[in-house]
Amino acid sequence: MEKKIAVIWGDCASPEIVKQALRVLDRVAEKYGHKFEYIDAAMGGEAIDKYGDPLPQQELDKCLAADSVLLGAVGGPKWEGLPGEQRPEKGLLRLRAGMGLYSNNRPAKIWPQLAPASPLKPEIVEKGIDFIIVRELIGGVYFGEHRTDTLPNGEKQAVDLMPYSEHEIERIGRIGFETAQKRRKKLCCVDKANVLDTSRLWRSVMHRLQAEYPDVEYSEMFVDNCAMQIVKNPAQFDVIVTENMFGDILSDEASMITGSIGMIPSSSLGEGTRGLYEPIHGSAPDIAGQNIVNPTACILSAAMMLRYSFGMAEEADAIENAVGAVLDKGLRTADNMSEGCKCLSCSGMGDAILEAL
Amino acid sequence: MEKKIAVIWGDCASPEIVKQALRVLDRVAEKYGHKFEYIDAAMGGEAIDKYGDPLPQQELDKCLAADSVLLGAVGGPKWEGLPGEQRPEKGLLRLRAGMGLYSNNRPAKIWPQLAPASPLKPEIVEKGIDFIIVRELIGGVYFGEHRTDTLPNGEKQAVDLMPYSEHEIERIGRIGFETAQKRRKKLCCVDKANVLDTSRLWRSVMHRLQAEYPDVEYSEMFVDNCAMQIVKNPAQFDVIVTENMFGDILSDEASMITGSIGMIPSSSLGEGTRGLYEPIHGSAPDIAGQNIVNPTACILSAAMMLRYSFGMAEEADAIENAVGAVLDKGLRTADNMSEGCKCLSCSGMGDAILEAL
Ligand SMILES: CC(C)[C@H](C(=O)O)[C@@H](O)C(=O)O
Ligand SMILES: CC(C)[C@H](C(=O)O)[C@@H](O)C(=O)O
Repeated sequence: MEKKIAVIWGDCASPEIVKQALRVLDRVAEKYGHKFEYIDAAMGGEAIDKYGDPLPQQELDKCLAADSVLLGAVGGPKWEGLPGEQRPEKGLLRLRAGMGLYSNNRPAKIWPQLAPASPLKPEIVEKGIDFIIVRELIGGVYFGEHRTDTLPNGEKQAVDLMPYSEHEIERIGRIGFETAQKRRKKLCCVDKANVLDTSRLWRSVMHRLQAEYPDVEYSEMFVDNCAMQIVKNPAQFDVIVTENMFGDILSDEASMITGSIGMIPSSSLGEGTRGLYEPIHGSAPDIAGQNIVNPTACILSAAMMLRYSFGMAEEADAIENAVGAVLDKGLRTADNMSEGCKCLSCSGMGDAILEAL
Repeated sequence: MEKKIAVIWGDCASPEIVKQALRVLDRVAEKYGHKFEYIDAAMGGEAIDKYGDPLPQQELDKCLAADSVLLGAVGGPKWEGLPGEQRPEKGLLRLRAGMGLYSNNRPAKIWPQLAPASPLKPEIVEKGIDFIIVRELIGGVYFGEHRTDTLPNGEKQAVDLMPYSEHEIERIGRIGFETAQKRRKKLCCVDKANVLDTSRLWRSVMHRLQAEYPDVEYSEMFVDNCAMQIVKNPAQFDVIVTENMFGDILSDEASMITGSIGMIPSSSLGEGTRGLYEPIHGSAPDIAGQNIVNPTACILSAAMMLRYSFGMAEEADAIENAVGAVLDKGLRTADNMSEGCKCLSCSGMGDAILEAL
């Protein structure tokens, strides 16, 4: 197959990990007889520096013209003082919206080899951590109106709007149910229905959908309770579906309990197969340029792209197995080091995964 | 001293814990020569059953006429099907607003005797968990407009508004700085300033205040990152100040890492000394009526009331020391049991604390 991949190199340490992911993709192409064409697209800090805009239209167009998009991570101290509209994150939000990527899939799965790195006790980890947070990605308070007004008394007031309409909930709700159907068939809708109208609308839509997925065991949980349960008993979860902001908070918490956020990829999809694939970790400005950042999450993001956007399950498996084999050999990057393991550089980890392929 | 205490007995297992807290208060009164008068006020499920309203005006008035308010916990399956306005939680929200309680103080502190119950690894727990979340309690998306409209295409859309004005931020920001001044002098403002206008207004107000508290080390963190850091390295925190919804989520997560949510009290204050004191745990419908619920959080809430509303530091110390002594003796309730300890009933724990007093 021939596929065009838009590549967003990202900021700070990000180009280092993207480079390794492309090496892995090249090897896969060679081995399985595919052709991947890479089109560089600038977004985030890089785009601000080049064009004064975190996502110029022509860069978004490149992404829309590609079969899928691979991203490292954007942002860094250099751009932090900028006003809201010109910040790197705004480029990411506009990319998600511009590509219509309403469904963000964030796996929280522990690699058995890295289980000792979890901050949770072994008794809890042993019960298994393997769930997915399906996060709505282009609605809610992220994309509602934000405004700051001056009140008659001279005081400033800011207001952020959190809107959700039925079709937005329905399409992500279906992804939640379908994801559960392919797994252990348990879906938990997380919200704050005791306070928010949006949450109550979520529940009413979910109840309607529930009838169409009788094979899925459906439950509901308040977000505050969920933040507790993820720490107390993560084994209870299979698939969580939730709105944008709650998904942001809970998926970061969930990634941390795996003990290895340098290992976690994510996919964002809309209608069709074009997606955006990115590590859930940030751009790691503190270690940029040192060739020590862990490239695995980006490499696994590339694997997810093969699986979900290109239907290349075998190729994706091969990458994921290669990562497992490397861990089995006791090879690690600095973020995951533990006794008796060997510490590799970023490119060294790329080499090791390539070799295992 | 003579003090009037409005007592909200609460729902499900709540009256069982309130009863023990009043026994402890009575003993303190006797020992230190105070007089506590208790005025029953109905809120939540009890008020719905009696008056068809989770907080009738006359019940709020009783609270406003008291020197302080002690609450167990409200809510339960019985009232879950009711529409938003008539649910038990709405009574709690109206009580907070009606009493002007903008500052909710939620300690996350590990009792050394219960450290083994934390879901976190000993290496992390040993570094110490002792921080306070100062949560804004009567603003933000909890109290902004909630509405559900039907769009021209027949589809329903819900919108929740998250408003914050400068004076609301300033008064809670000051509580954050002042709380830090009395402790390890570190304040972290948690927000989502890369997305929300309200968060950006928070930061601008906090920056203004910062100059007035030069002895406090001030920092900022995004809420998603904070959800990770609480699990990864809770020892880094001294005081966290945050808006209502983020505070709800993070304080529940923080309470869980202590391993003993049956032990955590909370205070809510506004201008003046009249406060609302309540455990952070819920009404435990699953174990109601069995005399096995842990009364300690409610007893410690009473201690907080003595300290913060009545200026009775010695009396508060006495209660807290009594709780410590009981734990030292290996006495526990079912929720906190571990090997070698003795399991007491709810009233049995009340007896033990009374005896230690
Ligand atoms: C950078 C930021 C805007 C973004 C978000 O909040 O969605 C990030 O935290 C994420 O989760 O991808
Ligand atoms: C019951 C609910 C409305 C309440 C809240 O969200 O504030 C509770 O979770 C709490 O934290 O006290």
